[in-house]
Amino acid sequence: MGTLSGITIGFIGLGLMGRPISLNLHRAGAELIIYNRSRGIVDELVGVGIKAATSPKDVAERAPIIVLMVSDTPAVERVLFGDDGVAQGLQTGAIVIDMGTTAVTATRNFAQQIKAKGAHYVDAPVSGGQVGAEAATLAIMVGASEDAFARAKPIFKVLAKNITHVGEGGAGQVAKAANQIIVGVTIGAVAEALALAKKAGVDPAKVRQALAGGFAASRILEVHGLRMVDQTFDPGGKATTQRKDLAQALELAQQLGMELPATALNRDLYDKLIEMGGGELDHSALIKVLE
Amino acid sequence: MGTLSGITIGFIGLGLMGRPISLNLHRAGAELIIYNRSRGIVDELVGVGIKAATSPKDVAERAPIIVLMVSDTPAVERVLFGDDGVAQGLQTGAIVIDMGTTAVTATRNFAQQIKAKGAHYVDAPVSGGQVGAEAATLAIMVGASEDAFARAKPIFKVLAKNITHVGEGGAGQVAKAANQIIVGVTIGAVAEALALAKKAGVDPAKVRQALAGGFAASRILEVHGLRMVDQTFDPGGKATTQRKDLAQALELAQQLGMELPATALNRDLYDKLIEMGGGELDHSALIKVLE
Repeated sequence: MGTLSGITIGFIGLGLMGRPISLNLHRAGAELIIYNRSRGIVDELVGVGIKAATSPKDVAERAPIIVLMVSDTPAVERVLFGDDGVAQGLQTGAIVIDMGTTAVTATRNFAQQIKAKGAHYVDAPVSGGQVGAEAATLAIMVGASEDAFARAKPIFKVLAKNITHVGEGGAGQVAKAANQIIVGVTIGAVAEALALAKKAGVDPAKVRQALAGGFAASRILEVHGLRMVDQTFDPGGKATTQRKDLAQALELAQQLGMELPATALNRDLYDKLIEMGGGELDHSALIKVLE
Repeated sequence: MGTLSGITIGFIGLGLMGRPISLNLHRAGAELIIYNRSRGIVDELVGVGIKAATSPKDVAERAPIIVLMVSDTPAVERVLFGDDGVAQGLQTGAIVIDMGTTAVTATRNFAQQIKAKGAHYVDAPVSGGQVGAEAATLAIMVGASEDAFARAKPIFKVLAKNITHVGEGGAGQVAKAANQIIVGVTIGAVAEALALAKKAGVDPAKVRQALAGGFAASRILEVHGLRMVDQTFDPGGKATTQRKDLAQALELAQQLGMELPATALNRDLYDKLIEMGGGELDHSALIKVLE
């Protein structure tokens, strides 16, 4: 029996990230009730003993804890407040945990609406990609009240290596925006560095190795730098997702009256990659724009 | 007796990096013969038993291995080929090691001229800053023939944790250009991320902590991110130096017919910081341009 046995968790959104996360919760002993728009993955998970719901509302009626891992802000809104949405089935005192990367202002708004229904809202976006989801080594950045954080924590412990309660509602999504800025822009930095080395006739693999011990060392150089060297761009994290996240961070900056020039530049570079047909590739394929 | 006892090393350039490096070589038992344009630091080192030379030429006449750690490409050229320069005193079979960050094309040109005089040239720029120099945990990226690399390696071992023979002459400087692109652009990324968090009302210290385990993790987030959080900008690495290194990388890119948009953008941001009077601050002060 795992650490989550006896706990019922609703799980909505079973894509690249949601699938391995839900499987880890299942392995930890939680009783999972899942919903996903496309049916194939649901059938697969039902095959390992997980229960399926017929709608987000159905999930909410059956589970006191509901985790969302859907693609973007409009999808979160639809799942929560659309027809047969979570809000229509919500149990009193329930806890809704959004683990996706969702706009900050929308998150604060969703949290208020869920609170008005007598439930709790936790924004808990993650970093670490599909690999981190599978290996249960994600970083989770949490925006929530102390109480709601305490209730959600056992779930996070099954999934993550680094769990940080960043602040009140929305603070997790602010941290995730910061995360995506750093990831997106650093990928651009590593791409320019390795493309320059190659063009100058020097082996990019050796350069990557030489930089490992110094100030240029990063997870991006390690993981995405290797993808650039090997020219293998299976996601990982898709270029379209990275583009969406940077645009979302820029929207937040604009609301705050701030300019983020490097973030804006990199959004434009990801746009170029997508125009070149690379939207479904890993974000490290950004190097193709430079070569 | 240290690992370098019995070895005579000439050392030219005793600034922020040269001083701790020369002291580490001295502590490892090398007989050091130093030269520096300004005299104060020379007197200090003579006080601990190091010998002073009267010119770069004098250094070359007295040492079969000559290390340069001077400020920029024109300074390397002056020290090597100016009046009373190294080239005028060079012993046959001597080895000249440039540990500074020098332009690639100039490096390949210097190496040829030194070779024509019957000596060897090694480009061995470092990463890790003053802290890494003091703690002997630098990363050294080396461009040299196999022979010259083998002869220089015992010296590097005293100074570094990560020594990579990247390729033939100039390859070390190509790797360093790549390093500086990543460092300069990643500082910009971390600055935008933490400035956004602060403006959104979330504690940047918590955000930095939340990001530590995920894909945004880097030495820059660790070291320079902390400087941004604490608002302490003593160098470290100066903004003017970072600006110079990015400009140098862009020069190389231009010679190769390549564009590096993020590097160019960040050079412009460092220019703004310098205009604001922040040139002597640590490069992490770039966050001041955004706030």
